[in-house]
Amino acid sequence: MRISTLLTSSIPFGHNFFNRRALASSSLAFRFRTMADSSEDSLRKALSEKQSEVESQGNQVRALKEAGAAKTELDAAVKALNALKLEKTSIEKNLQAIISGPDGGSVNKEAFRQAVVNTLERRLFYIPSFKIYGGVAGLYDYGPPGCAVKSNVLGFWRQHFVLEENMLEVDCPCVTPEIVLKASGHVEKFTDLMVKDEKSGTCYRADHLLKDFCKEKLEKDLRITSEMAMELKEVLSNLDVLSAEELGECIKRYGITAPDTRNPLSNPYPFNLMFQTSIGPSGVSTGFMRPETAQGIFVNFRDLYYYNGNKLPFAAAQIGQAFRNEISPRQGLLRVREFTLAEIEHFVDPEDKSHPKFSDVAHLEFLMFPRDEQKPGHSARIISIGEAVASKIVDNETLGYFIGRVYLFLTHLGIDKNRLRFRQHLANEMAHYAQDCWDAEIETSYGWIECVGIADRSAYDLKAHSEKSKVDLEAQEKYSEPREVEKLVISPVKKVIGLAFKVDQKKVLEALEAMKEEEALKMKTDLESKGEVEFYVCTLGKNVSINSSMVTISKEKKKEHQRVFTPSVIEPSFGIGRIIYCLYEHSYYMRPSRDGNEQFNVFRFPPLVAPIKCTVFPLVQKPEYEEVSKVISKSLTASGISHKIDITGTSIGKRYARTDELGVPFAITVDSTLSLRDLRTWADVWSAFPHHSSGSVDE
Amino acid sequence: MRISTLLTSSIPFGHNFFNRRALASSSLAFRFRTMADSSEDSLRKALSEKQSEVESQGNQVRALKEAGAAKTELDAAVKALNALKLEKTSIEKNLQAIISGPDGGSVNKEAFRQAVVNTLERRLFYIPSFKIYGGVAGLYDYGPPGCAVKSNVLGFWRQHFVLEENMLEVDCPCVTPEIVLKASGHVEKFTDLMVKDEKSGTCYRADHLLKDFCKEKLEKDLRITSEMAMELKEVLSNLDVLSAEELGECIKRYGITAPDTRNPLSNPYPFNLMFQTSIGPSGVSTGFMRPETAQGIFVNFRDLYYYNGNKLPFAAAQIGQAFRNEISPRQGLLRVREFTLAEIEHFVDPEDKSHPKFSDVAHLEFLMFPRDEQKPGHSARIISIGEAVASKIVDNETLGYFIGRVYLFLTHLGIDKNRLRFRQHLANEMAHYAQDCWDAEIETSYGWIECVGIADRSAYDLKAHSEKSKVDLEAQEKYSEPREVEKLVISPVKKVIGLAFKVDQKKVLEALEAMKEEEALKMKTDLESKGEVEFYVCTLGKNVSINSSMVTISKEKKKEHQRVFTPSVIEPSFGIGRIIYCLYEHSYYMRPSRDGNEQFNVFRFPPLVAPIKCTVFPLVQKPEYEEVSKVISKSLTASGISHKIDITGTSIGKRYARTDELGVPFAITVDSTLSLRDLRTWADVWSAFPHHSSGSVDE
Repeated sequence: MRISTLLTSSIPFGHNFFNRRALASSSLAFRFRTMADSSEDSLRKALSEKQSEVESQGNQVRALKEAGAAKTELDAAVKALNALKLEKTSIEKNLQAIISGPDGGSVNKEAFRQAVVNTLERRLFYIPSFKIYGGVAGLYDYGPPGCAVKSNVLGFWRQHFVLEENMLEVDCPCVTPEIVLKASGHVEKFTDLMVKDEKSGTCYRADHLLKDFCKEKLEKDLRITSEMAMELKEVLSNLDVLSAEELGECIKRYGITAPDTRNPLSNPYPFNLMFQTSIGPSGVSTGFMRPETAQGIFVNFRDLYYYNGNKLPFAAAQIGQAFRNEISPRQGLLRVREFTLAEIEHFVDPEDKSHPKFSDVAHLEFLMFPRDEQKPGHSARIISIGEAVASKIVDNETLGYFIGRVYLFLTHLGIDKNRLRFRQHLANEMAHYAQDCWDAEIETSYGWIECVGIADRSAYDLKAHSEKSKVDLEAQEKYSEPREVEKLVISPVKKVIGLAFKVDQKKVLEALEAMKEEEALKMKTDLESKGEVEFYVCTLGKNVSINSSMVTISKEKKKEHQRVFTPSVIEPSFGIGRIIYCLYEHSYYMRPSRDGNEQFNVFRFPPLVAPIKCTVFPLVQKPEYEEVSKVISKSLTASGISHKIDITGTSIGKRYARTDELGVPFAITVDSTLSLRDLRTWADVWSAFPHHSSGSVDE
Repeated sequence: MRISTLLTSSIPFGHNFFNRRALASSSLAFRFRTMADSSEDSLRKALSEKQSEVESQGNQVRALKEAGAAKTELDAAVKALNALKLEKTSIEKNLQAIISGPDGGSVNKEAFRQAVVNTLERRLFYIPSFKIYGGVAGLYDYGPPGCAVKSNVLGFWRQHFVLEENMLEVDCPCVTPEIVLKASGHVEKFTDLMVKDEKSGTCYRADHLLKDFCKEKLEKDLRITSEMAMELKEVLSNLDVLSAEELGECIKRYGITAPDTRNPLSNPYPFNLMFQTSIGPSGVSTGFMRPETAQGIFVNFRDLYYYNGNKLPFAAAQIGQAFRNEISPRQGLLRVREFTLAEIEHFVDPEDKSHPKFSDVAHLEFLMFPRDEQKPGHSARIISIGEAVASKIVDNETLGYFIGRVYLFLTHLGIDKNRLRFRQHLANEMAHYAQDCWDAEIETSYGWIECVGIADRSAYDLKAHSEKSKVDLEAQEKYSEPREVEKLVISPVKKVIGLAFKVDQKKVLEALEAMKEEEALKMKTDLESKGEVEFYVCTLGKNVSINSSMVTISKEKKKEHQRVFTPSVIEPSFGIGRIIYCLYEHSYYMRPSRDGNEQFNVFRFPPLVAPIKCTVFPLVQKPEYEEVSKVISKSLTASGISHKIDITGTSIGKRYARTDELGVPFAITVDSTLSLRDLRTWADVWSAFPHHSSGSVDE
């Protein structure tokens, strides 16, 4: 296999499938870890040269020894060898530093992630599902604080999208009959490529094994040639588009074996990622757990359009569970077998994708990474969405409007705007029918993670369901005044045709009427010039002679009162669990205790997101303070404000440390006076103002 | 089969399974349609006697005719026959009236239901799922207003239960590995009995067919004997507890055939109602879509107990999808294959089921139907929950507290308190381990529907998972002071036993130490009286002789610092979709148009539940009114109030009619002044006050 062929290999299928694959690897992190590329390349070359020098100098020393050379001569040679080795070590260090990145690389990232994840698991933000039975890979529970965060994120999503934009929210079942997912293409194409350990039968994702191999080589093996490094990088950046055959070839070529046993691997073959089941007791009706919520909206288009007064544009939205039977889930909360999606399908006239509220977002500026700029040496840059649409970087206003709204949504939740970018899909990442597609990617310890996909999917989905169900999924535009249009009119003369073709007359008639415009116009010209033409009637399986007396073909002006068309759909699709995980990483930091001997974990959530808004505690244990605390608690409950009351005698410092781990933004302390603590500005407040200190405060 | 045996047939399994079955039929509606029973019975007898009289008089007339009797004699006989026939018709009418009930019976109910359902479907409260593909039985989508109602109901549930009671909310996956559902008993017992059309293979629920037969006979066939009527009623009230064999016998006995084809039916056999699937690519790991959310809480007990500071009582809650692969779903939204459950598991010390907030609900009075009163001639009566607990009708305070809270929850949503009752499970309805169980039942056109089950399940679930997973799921009560307890101490004298039993000594030792209290005490007495006893060591498979020098057995007082126990669980479980459907029926009414020529559909939702809180419209079409309407709309959006703006020129009456169908409780009309319409009191307001009328108002 020549690697260059990979770059042109065709994309098997559309957006949903492709997105899933793109998500699967964080290969993009590699593709764009660019800046360093040229120096990495020259260092690899230098290292390989230095290695040769070390070897040849080593040989020379050995030869001198064998020849019994003079001590001074030998010493000089050894000294030169050592100098070369030092130079080599220095090059290796530089190379390692570049490979690991400026921040110390994956080691630091993993330590950071471990600190976040430990706090999350200890405070039950999430729990591996069915833990007492050993758990199931890729399934997680949200514990109390995680569940509250999720509920807050979804509540804000409803306010920000559904309510603000007057969307039509629907709620469809997860169990989906086969025919729906055949129409959408999932039954045939929603697959990952799998390999099996030929002896133990353990399954692996083929691209994961190849990715691990390439990463390992590139990061740990300093001796690979510059050419080999280039090749491995090219493999990595094309992982998503490798065919089964190409993947298989790579696995053979690099001698990749099963990671656990070192046994040989089978050839890669497709595994459908949908959970399959059977609907009803007969066993003959196949169903699947939906892999996305969008299809439930598409199949309801006709009713929703009617509900909206037969007017476009309008958007429908759905929040719900989706299921993907991953081959071997990893990356914790980022790659799971069941997850919550929030999806919007905005239906719009393909001839008018303007948006009345675009001016509300046009001024927003954020990191965008257009298709053409995704090459070595470039990274995302700040562009205003108004400019991006005006300069056609983003295809249309409606798509641009949603990109802006998604930006506002994510940053309001607490996503750091400096670690959020909108990346445009490359041409070979998009489905053939897609008009344009942008992913909101958030940077985490795992690299850049796609959390929201915003795609202009043209009319593909509605057409697919319309074709399969034989139900029209169309919209009409009523003209305010009738419009004149030119239409081709084919008028066969029945009597003449009847006499000429007898029993075949019906088939000839139908064939004439069924002619496409181009064919009919050619016949018209031919009849005008020759008076007679040969005409193939497929239902008869032969040619017949048609002359000018048998048919008139003309272009006529007609008045039309409306236009009928299949709407385009613009789809923002949110992976809620991923957004929440990214939020955890972006909200987490450590603060030292007052004496500097301890480190406390803090989640600095915006109040909007915080699982518990407020803690209430008496500064010292006194019955009257407890009473006051309970009164406050009661009135907070009545106002629907989640809070925690802590009347333990523990020191205030420890109590703050406890609530900091849960990201509680406010605290009410009861003393002779009431005080309000606002975590969001705590660090600033602490350093800026004089503060009361008592014996029981340990920070 | 003698019907009386049915009454004593044992219950196969616990609450979840049993509940499901109880839900399956509205047989209770029959069991308690009592009052009429005695007159029904005497009418059936009278009818049967009258029928005999008619027949014998008929025979007499025929005999007179054949004998050529005199006209006067024949006329008198015919007159008597006609009089008898009239009397018979009159009895039939009375009987039919009693069977149909005072309100005209099932015909009226079905017409009412049809009116509700038509409005619901037309306004997209719900939509049969995958409609363009012909739909799937038992699967429904919530359209925009239905989705908003659901979201409001769940929001209020969170406020009323989770927040008010400081519950620990969790969110677990639907995909569940087999071992969890084996422990809970679902894999073995979560079944319904099914029969197959022996020729076409179509599947039916055996109890449904039997129920339909009995209902049809009782309601339509006036000629069945009083004894037969009694028998059929007894079958109906025992449908839930019939074994496969008993059901099969009934089907044979009554000659029931397949409803569509009249083909013979197979014997009933169990069909597991869980949707089965496979987790991961290997195909060897069986999973199911969870049939309830509760198991996800039980398996997390240990972590949640820790999260709660190792303190009891506490409650965990979960809202989520559950799945039941019904054999042949019917009853529309009441029996579906996928639905939203909201479940609470309140963990409590079995020795202390008091509730600190019980006094908050003790005064509440509502319809309760205790077990002992569920017999002919009785119906639910108003009892205060305080009295019910005090008189031990309800087992304990915590159970009583939740019954009270459920009452408040349902009535706040808009459920009519006169059509809501709390029915206690009969002894044969409950699982053997259940302490007590009450269902909140709501009366609808389908009869009384169980919408919430509130059960004291003792320690059953935690023990089942602890046994299967080998993980302790226990709580500790730390004593404030150590307590003295008497403990049995068995001290074998190793040296003596070693000398006596040589190679067998270890087995003898272990057997002695493993003795149960009773056995040990008997040995102690025997040793004291006889000095030597025979002792069976099962690991040796034989008796050995034990004498007083080999073991001392004594009762000693020990100090204990804590008590370790498995908590009891009190489980309120809410079928959200059912509650919502009942709410629709209770909120629906028809109001005539002003001219009385039309009937308008109205849902009178409380603002809390209403899918759209408010409509805004200009009374007449004027640009300045439109502007004002838009300003109002914007500020409603900003306050998070869902609303609809209607600037069409349609008449105000029609616009009100439209919003009434969606249950919009408020309207803001824009004129030279602003007016607020409050639908909740509209009818009263309309009749009580003089009202402005303009040409465009048509009501």
